[in-house]
Amino acid sequence: MSEYRGYEKNSLAFLKDNKLKVGDSVKITSDLTYSGILMPRYESSDDEHIVLKLKNGYNIGLELNKIKKVEIISKNHTKIETESKIKKDSSLPKILLLSTGGTIASKIDYRTGGVTPALTAEDLNASVPELNEIVNVDTEVLFSEYSENLMPEHWKKIAERLDGLVNSDYHGIIIAHGTDTMQYTAAFLSFALAGYPIPIALVGSQRSSDRPSSDAALNLIQAARFIVNCNTKGVFVVMHHNESDDLIACHLGTRVRKNHTSTRGAFETIGGDPAFLIINKKIENNLKDNFFKINDYKPRIKLDTHVALVKYYPGFDAGIIDNLLSSGYKALIFEGTGLGHIGKSMYDSVKKAREKKLFMGMTSQCIDGRVNMNVYESGRDLLEFGITPLSNLIPETALVKAMWALGNSENSDEMKNLMLENIASEFSD
Amino acid sequence: MSEYRGYEKNSLAFLKDNKLKVGDSVKITSDLTYSGILMPRYESSDDEHIVLKLKNGYNIGLELNKIKKVEIISKNHTKIETESKIKKDSSLPKILLLSTGGTIASKIDYRTGGVTPALTAEDLNASVPELNEIVNVDTEVLFSEYSENLMPEHWKKIAERLDGLVNSDYHGIIIAHGTDTMQYTAAFLSFALAGYPIPIALVGSQRSSDRPSSDAALNLIQAARFIVNCNTKGVFVVMHHNESDDLIACHLGTRVRKNHTSTRGAFETIGGDPAFLIINKKIENNLKDNFFKINDYKPRIKLDTHVALVKYYPGFDAGIIDNLLSSGYKALIFEGTGLGHIGKSMYDSVKKAREKKLFMGMTSQCIDGRVNMNVYESGRDLLEFGITPLSNLIPETALVKAMWALGNSENSDEMKNLMLENIASEFSD
Repeated sequence: MSEYRGYEKNSLAFLKDNKLKVGDSVKITSDLTYSGILMPRYESSDDEHIVLKLKNGYNIGLELNKIKKVEIISKNHTKIETESKIKKDSSLPKILLLSTGGTIASKIDYRTGGVTPALTAEDLNASVPELNEIVNVDTEVLFSEYSENLMPEHWKKIAERLDGLVNSDYHGIIIAHGTDTMQYTAAFLSFALAGYPIPIALVGSQRSSDRPSSDAALNLIQAARFIVNCNTKGVFVVMHHNESDDLIACHLGTRVRKNHTSTRGAFETIGGDPAFLIINKKIENNLKDNFFKINDYKPRIKLDTHVALVKYYPGFDAGIIDNLLSSGYKALIFEGTGLGHIGKSMYDSVKKAREKKLFMGMTSQCIDGRVNMNVYESGRDLLEFGITPLSNLIPETALVKAMWALGNSENSDEMKNLMLENIASEFSD
Repeated sequence: MSEYRGYEKNSLAFLKDNKLKVGDSVKITSDLTYSGILMPRYESSDDEHIVLKLKNGYNIGLELNKIKKVEIISKNHTKIETESKIKKDSSLPKILLLSTGGTIASKIDYRTGGVTPALTAEDLNASVPELNEIVNVDTEVLFSEYSENLMPEHWKKIAERLDGLVNSDYHGIIIAHGTDTMQYTAAFLSFALAGYPIPIALVGSQRSSDRPSSDAALNLIQAARFIVNCNTKGVFVVMHHNESDDLIACHLGTRVRKNHTSTRGAFETIGGDPAFLIINKKIENNLKDNFFKINDYKPRIKLDTHVALVKYYPGFDAGIIDNLLSSGYKALIFEGTGLGHIGKSMYDSVKKAREKKLFMGMTSQCIDGRVNMNVYESGRDLLEFGITPLSNLIPETALVKAMWALGNSENSDEMKNLMLENIASEFSD
């Protein structure tokens, strides 16, 4: 019953009573009047709502018992293929939609009220038919995990899969990814795949896709538009710029941070504008010259997780550092205060780390601005103990880069050089 | 030779040649023409500059060999008392300026180029003569430490000193404090001294006070103005709102964060406007109703530092938690991802912490926005393991509050209640 896909009991009866089928173009009056296309639903949905896709790309759920009027504008207006057979236009640029999980590939379980990751890349593609007007989409599921469960080994698997596609005919790759740790994955891919010949866009959503006001569809559509028109390589995070649907931002994978728990515009480029802004169909390029210094693609996919991100605070127990030293850690990234400081109470442990030849790098918990360890005597002390100031590298990117640099260097000098080399615009002006 | 205080060799000769004395009102032409008052200098200054205080409250250092013209407007125009005898006007409101160190109470060592904490509260007061036109200032030095070296025991000493002054005739207290950990101290005082009858303003500077473009003087002056006119109690951080000298912000001590390493407007109220804005002499009140729910002053100054702030990231080694458990920690504040998540790899350690009856609270590394652990199954798992969601408490404030709550409660239920009680507007709407 693909023409009623996902509807059952009350909602199925409602469709039949009103002679509605999935794919119909309709006008429905509830609190307001909405025009859009009747969408399929997924298992575990409740039977009290129908879902419309509005012209702005959003899906909206309408409660049956609030619907006052139903008007059919045209039957089967769009090409929604409900049995995983998307109509492809082979003349369009080809892209791969790789799914790793996250809200963007999830649905609400109406029984529990929670969200679970479940949609496949194919489902995602099917629920955003506009994608197929811009690109010719292949889909692939790599994982189905919320991103708080994605670990460095997952980053590696994504990089290896992409490395395997380096000679494909894709114009670019979209990675559907949870937003929680998207910036960490984006940073790793930026380093591991520096010079990769086609753009890579990580896309997530802050509201799940069968929910009113989901940002999933629009983020996906604009990511596809970005890939086709951006004329650059590099790794980007493509998300709403703010609460408006008119602006989608493409952030450099090394300079982006999730700065709000719940708004749709949660992601920000730290210390500057997003690399690109997509204003409806127009793409505005804010990318600095030579943002991406490595032109030859030579993948460096190894990593070593013996790195800790140490956020300093008053009362921080230096014993925590001593424990890291005896647990085999090889590098420490400090998230210091202000211009890059940690208290004197840390000095003995820092000296021990130095003796054990750990790489130590300094970033700031202020997040924005540059570390400068020459201004205060405390900073100069830390320089003497061998801590490397990491300029305006954001702390999370510094952690990821350290795991990557540790995995791809033979000794601590080589690691330090890699840490200070600007690989993927992780240091900005 | 107080009329030439701090000037020596070249700069002293320059003053004598031009018949200039400290306190004179002068007009000096260098790259531009500057009008101001010739200021005293402090030991270790170089002998190649003279320092003018401009009308906007800034001190500017002028290099001798760039000075083209010197014009004396009036002799000894101001009441700069160079021998630590400030002219006090006993009819003005009385305040205490308590110094703990930091850039605001420091000077540049021109030999090394670094900044060291050295000025006393008295020096500070002397170098900002305008203070004495607004308030009648007593001064006291508590510590002389950069704030990265201020520990919870220092917070306690500050609170104890202020508690001792509860029956004084002061209209308010200004605490000169380094900016690095100012937000942590402000949060502790907010909790420990909730209900304190007069306002407490922490003031710092991002540029040292004998440097051109220092923000020290203006922050101090406006803090004094705030104390006299604010008509509130509570603990505030008073700093430049942005790079402009026209706007000084007063942030609630529990909602403020240093969000930039170096700009003068580095401090921000998270998720809202600053409680007050001082626009020149006008004070704009943005404080929400009942921001400060505790009216009776009952100091709770104890604290217990067996609390760790645990920032989660992909690859976070759960063994770090196990080490904290065996090191006697009694509470963990997680800085989770997104709406308040940590990966499944942490679950076993979280369960062990639960068995050991540790208090566990969840905040978000997004910093802005509210934790919500009901949306995703992972969040609901963590709730089941006994982690308490801390709404929009910022992570650093949550850490400080946990140290305070642990010190001032008998058992974990009591601690949890304290953590969730809105004591000093640490939870905002």
